[in-house]
Amino acid sequence: MRTRVAIIGAGPAGLLLSQLLHDRGIDAVLLEARDREYCEHRQRAGMLEQATVDVLREAGAADRLDREGLVHHGIHLRYAGRDRHIDFPSRTGGRSVTVYGQTEIVKDLIAKRVAQGARMYFDAPVTAIEGIDGDAPRVRFLRDGVEEVLECDLVAGCDGFHGVSRGAIPADVLKTYERVHPFAWLGILADVAPSTDDLIYAHSERGFALHSMRSRAVSRLYLQVDPDADLADWPDERIWAELRERLALPGWTLDEGPIRERSITPMRSFVAEPMSFGRLFLAGDAAHIVPPTGAKGLNLAVADVRVLARACGEFFLAGSRAGLDGYSDACLRRVWRAEQFSSWMTTLLHARVDASGFDRRCQEAELAYVADSSAAMDSLAENYVGYTWAD
Amino acid sequence: MRTRVAIIGAGPAGLLLSQLLHDRGIDAVLLEARDREYCEHRQRAGMLEQATVDVLREAGAADRLDREGLVHHGIHLRYAGRDRHIDFPSRTGGRSVTVYGQTEIVKDLIAKRVAQGARMYFDAPVTAIEGIDGDAPRVRFLRDGVEEVLECDLVAGCDGFHGVSRGAIPADVLKTYERVHPFAWLGILADVAPSTDDLIYAHSERGFALHSMRSRAVSRLYLQVDPDADLADWPDERIWAELRERLALPGWTLDEGPIRERSITPMRSFVAEPMSFGRLFLAGDAAHIVPPTGAKGLNLAVADVRVLARACGEFFLAGSRAGLDGYSDACLRRVWRAEQFSSWMTTLLHARVDASGFDRRCQEAELAYVADSSAAMDSLAENYVGYTWAD
Repeated sequence: MRTRVAIIGAGPAGLLLSQLLHDRGIDAVLLEARDREYCEHRQRAGMLEQATVDVLREAGAADRLDREGLVHHGIHLRYAGRDRHIDFPSRTGGRSVTVYGQTEIVKDLIAKRVAQGARMYFDAPVTAIEGIDGDAPRVRFLRDGVEEVLECDLVAGCDGFHGVSRGAIPADVLKTYERVHPFAWLGILADVAPSTDDLIYAHSERGFALHSMRSRAVSRLYLQVDPDADLADWPDERIWAELRERLALPGWTLDEGPIRERSITPMRSFVAEPMSFGRLFLAGDAAHIVPPTGAKGLNLAVADVRVLARACGEFFLAGSRAGLDGYSDACLRRVWRAEQFSSWMTTLLHARVDASGFDRRCQEAELAYVADSSAAMDSLAENYVGYTWAD
Repeated sequence: MRTRVAIIGAGPAGLLLSQLLHDRGIDAVLLEARDREYCEHRQRAGMLEQATVDVLREAGAADRLDREGLVHHGIHLRYAGRDRHIDFPSRTGGRSVTVYGQTEIVKDLIAKRVAQGARMYFDAPVTAIEGIDGDAPRVRFLRDGVEEVLECDLVAGCDGFHGVSRGAIPADVLKTYERVHPFAWLGILADVAPSTDDLIYAHSERGFALHSMRSRAVSRLYLQVDPDADLADWPDERIWAELRERLALPGWTLDEGPIRERSITPMRSFVAEPMSFGRLFLAGDAAHIVPPTGAKGLNLAVADVRVLARACGEFFLAGSRAGLDGYSDACLRRVWRAEQFSSWMTTLLHARVDASGFDRRCQEAELAYVADSSAAMDSLAENYVGYTWAD
């Protein structure tokens, strides 16, 4: 089998790349280790920057997003019984964010690609990526247990943190950077209308809590828990009691409903450099992980893919390698901005049992400052909607 | 001997308090362990917030400051061969800062108090502070080796981090918070006109450097060094060579001159809570230390004293304890804001050999952000000139 671009992974990065390449008339084959059902039901993030919405529209994959997405004009910062709403449009030249589940984006993109007759193989795990330091890479993968070879010009590694792509970069070339945060998030999907218009980021001594939503009828709520926490120790009543305590605000009530899904996610910051080697290009979680606090993971993946699709266009349609050569640096500038912001917001909002008394007092002082200073709120807002460089 | 307020320490906090009480007609006695010569020649900070200048004017101790102080409208943030000037007036509603050595403030205040015939005793170390939990505190001190007793209504502990005052607060009441930063500053005074208009805060992999000044003819320069660094290892040529490297900018030259003074200062963050107990009130370094990066130490001391003088006025002239009772909380809000800012700026600008690769990359990302984002520069500026709360 032969194609121009071998795309590994049917998450939002791989699927969107496949669509953007198709739109440019560049042939690609997508290989995904899991089945379609699995891909369409992974619960992930759902807070889209304006730039992310724009790319999805450009890809013609935003019809349902435009109908069902919930535009948000800010977030609530809640602590010590106070609530500060940080407005985005007035602080960022009119920008806002949109709530629309990553799961839904994946469904929309798969449906569209299937309808377009894309060469897209599920249950097709990659076993080897070869020849990326030459001109003719080959991707070996299994189909019905039989190994096949996909010959291509470029390989796009969109297979997530645990995927095989990153490992194809020689160990003496790849540098990795990591911070493990000493807590995890217990997340639930509940069948109850959200008790808030905009997301609530709440800090308390009991721990961080986040009130988010998937739709007008489905709430998404998170609790900071220990990294080794066990769902078995978190019956429904305990989850709701803890959410009530941490989100408490005089005169405000948290509406409860049946919990449909629950999971515990560790918090990790991770970056691999460079994001490309020879003919292999990493995008999304394959190259970088952010803790979910800043809602940046999906947006970074989409931004990577936008740069990569453009670079592929230059390469195949104009014969220039410049875009591909600049891919890693272009992405990493944005990635590190998001990593720093995500780590900052994580550290600011979580209860830090490991921190010194001095650091905890500084955390309280910074929370009070961010909730008081217009400049600090501007800074948070411009990062949350997606920072755009002045220089 | 008897007075209304026993002031311990002839640094800027104690001296200014003595002046402000005198101006309110409240009798005070100042006790200082060292001699006048020593007090007048300690090299310390010299960056005054507008509010600090205002109090000194209010105290009638700003004649020379108004003549010789250098008004600064911003700072330079220099790293990776780039220089970003952060303008203060345009970012803070017209505020700026003034360079005028703390040593000079001390000289001015001593001269003024002496001329006013103040009861001010040098070489008079305090040996005990008694009865602060009652209505009639007593301060025991030595004069010419003989113990004397100063009876008073209130005690103001302005005797610095190593002074005796803080120790008079019972250990089960006092909570202390501390962070030791893993570096020190080697500071020099050099007889050469400053090579810059505004201060230069420079980050490089070799370490932090700061180009400050004392006057139009005297430069004050600092280098980040190891906490256990020895001046003997830092001959003049090495100091200048290192300053040249760390401050380097294409087209810019560092002018050198004879080094008149040099010293190494450790970096510490420290806060004692509460800042008062019974009839004892701590002010300045006796209660809190900031690393010098944010230029906050002197300004915090002056702000404490301004609050304390007003509270003393209410107490002695209007018979109300409200100001005294609220003293600690009022000060600590500002102190923690300054502690957080100073720690942030210290961490942002120093070379951190102890930091992980991830943290160093985040530091670079944050430096690039602060030098690019108008919101981030606004935030730095409003803190540098002295944060004023909106709420």
